[in-house]
Amino acid sequence: MAFRASVVRLNRAIVYTQNGDPAQVLRALTYKPLPPPAPETVNIKYLLAPINPSDVNVVQGVYPAKPSLTSLVDGQPDVFVGGNEGLAEVTHVGSGVTDLVKGDWVVMTKAQAGTWSSSRNVGVLDVLKLPRVEGLTEVHGATMTVNPPSAYNMLNDYVALEKDEWVVQNGANSAVGQAVIQIAASRGFKTLNLVRKRSDIDELTRKLKDLGATEVLTYDDLNDRNLTQRIVKEWTGGKGIRLGLNCVSGPDTTSMARLLGQDAYLVSYGAMSKQPLALPTGLFIFKNLTSVGFWQSRWYKQKTRSDKENLFKTLATLIGHGKASPEHEIVTIPAEDSDEVAGQKVREIFAKIAEGQYGKKVLLKIAGSE
Amino acid sequence: MAFRASVVRLNRAIVYTQNGDPAQVLRALTYKPLPPPAPETVNIKYLLAPINPSDVNVVQGVYPAKPSLTSLVDGQPDVFVGGNEGLAEVTHVGSGVTDLVKGDWVVMTKAQAGTWSSSRNVGVLDVLKLPRVEGLTEVHGATMTVNPPSAYNMLNDYVALEKDEWVVQNGANSAVGQAVIQIAASRGFKTLNLVRKRSDIDELTRKLKDLGATEVLTYDDLNDRNLTQRIVKEWTGGKGIRLGLNCVSGPDTTSMARLLGQDAYLVSYGAMSKQPLALPTGLFIFKNLTSVGFWQSRWYKQKTRSDKENLFKTLATLIGHGKASPEHEIVTIPAEDSDEVAGQKVREIFAKIAEGQYGKKVLLKIAGSE
Repeated sequence: MAFRASVVRLNRAIVYTQNGDPAQVLRALTYKPLPPPAPETVNIKYLLAPINPSDVNVVQGVYPAKPSLTSLVDGQPDVFVGGNEGLAEVTHVGSGVTDLVKGDWVVMTKAQAGTWSSSRNVGVLDVLKLPRVEGLTEVHGATMTVNPPSAYNMLNDYVALEKDEWVVQNGANSAVGQAVIQIAASRGFKTLNLVRKRSDIDELTRKLKDLGATEVLTYDDLNDRNLTQRIVKEWTGGKGIRLGLNCVSGPDTTSMARLLGQDAYLVSYGAMSKQPLALPTGLFIFKNLTSVGFWQSRWYKQKTRSDKENLFKTLATLIGHGKASPEHEIVTIPAEDSDEVAGQKVREIFAKIAEGQYGKKVLLKIAGSE
Repeated sequence: MAFRASVVRLNRAIVYTQNGDPAQVLRALTYKPLPPPAPETVNIKYLLAPINPSDVNVVQGVYPAKPSLTSLVDGQPDVFVGGNEGLAEVTHVGSGVTDLVKGDWVVMTKAQAGTWSSSRNVGVLDVLKLPRVEGLTEVHGATMTVNPPSAYNMLNDYVALEKDEWVVQNGANSAVGQAVIQIAASRGFKTLNLVRKRSDIDELTRKLKDLGATEVLTYDDLNDRNLTQRIVKEWTGGKGIRLGLNCVSGPDTTSMARLLGQDAYLVSYGAMSKQPLALPTGLFIFKNLTSVGFWQSRWYKQKTRSDKENLFKTLATLIGHGKASPEHEIVTIPAEDSDEVAGQKVREIFAKIAEGQYGKKVLLKIAGSE
């Protein structure tokens, strides 16, 4: 998709000035074409940017990470631009930039970059080139920096798993959960995947097994002590599982922890039950359990640029060659809409999300006018 | 105390053949004088051996570590000998033993050694010489291998604390808690010590401060959010505490965890509340909390002999020069008692312990006959 530099292009972003319910506080704001990029920066055009659950919390002001205030329109108050994750295309390259060219795909390595916008100017160190691997779609690229790396790093950073070793996870049907299944399968690990009991459990089981899941059970299944003992005894030769991934917490996670063996890690990255993580103290003392939390934003802060480049090379290949794409719906906000109409559309999307009316991930495509 | 080798000396041990209530299943068993020690072994005479809470659980059969069956009397069934910790004196040295001489004090580095006995033969690698530091008493020596090293290692192994940095612990009046206070004070760390609300709180506070405690609060105090915020803000400059030690679990420990800062460790070594350790998942994800368990028995298994020697040198000096001795009562089982009478006495001690009738640690002195 070529950029015609000669055409005046107005931009638009989804912004807010006060924290609150996104269905109330978000609005659309048109701003002027970007000037040519300063040295060591690039202008980028966002192709797609997802609405993740944590984005809602950021707008509400209840998330530990916050965007910075940005000046988009001269003479108007600074705003927060929504959106943390997204895929963009490089449109103009500033002087001194050596590793990006026009047309490159980039993803954000800086948190809360304000991805719900059409075009922005960013520092070269705040983005990373995404290799254009065959099979890698825009949707893959737009959902590449939070869930797949969380899955990859949690599988990689805590326990040196051997081939055919088991990993247990709850919330297995979440975006991270599905990424865990695929990445684990590609690396030869077995996964025990726990999900809520539901009417379509057979269908869900089939879907997760198609992605590469070894076994799928419900939280209720784990109340059967005979089953959990049999899992530990027969599946793991009595050793128990050395890595558990948790995005649920509450009693169901306590049951899951019974499957863990000596020296295991329980890595938490969410708490969908909104209950604390409660574990028998004896697991820590006598089984040497370590309980930690994983936050991809911290990983980005702590790791070097070369760590990040390596990760995205690996993930682009894994995901491009993989079978799965996140279930999604793309919502385009056309350039022709006025800011009033566009803002109304966006607020309605968030109202629907709050009511649980989307079963899949919503990706925004904020068009600029040309 | 010189050993007269020419005198026939009968031995006695407190033993059991089936797990159960110690007040029911324990009995005294007299056995023959020890033969001269085999190469690489020594004969030792126990001077004092404590009854620790975990010893009760071992006899009940609900503790993860179990003693091995031992043959004490030819032609009689093998028995379990009670007692994990204790101070002994070397009485005879086998050939090839170079680092121990008659009269040396030794402590056990092998778990569940059966310390509730008069004399035993042990491998040189299962004991460690305890330096005879001035001020170090038999009581110190007999209680040296579980609680003081737990305190020392928990302060040492997880967070590289700086001088004047805070440590928070609950159960601060426990044997480990008191050792933590003293060792932390000797190393220049500040301690926030949490205890149950009680009528004699002023007296207890004074006692713990005499040991070196910086501050003493009750669990109830932590329900005051203003106070906890002030502690974090004013005491730690907003950073929070990086090391928490837990032997309580349950809701009081959840409150304690609010005092912890970024990248903190919560190290659990007990669960006196008999409730699980319940923590908000966000502490793990966003504050990078690591929750682990400490078990001194595991430490002994994992560390080298030289690690252990260094630890005991350090601890002997610290404790010998320290102000405190565990509150204790020594119960002697005289050689003149028949096994029936001796067994009855021991079972009564355990019945009293189960009823909470001892406020202090009981140390057994099992006399042999000469």
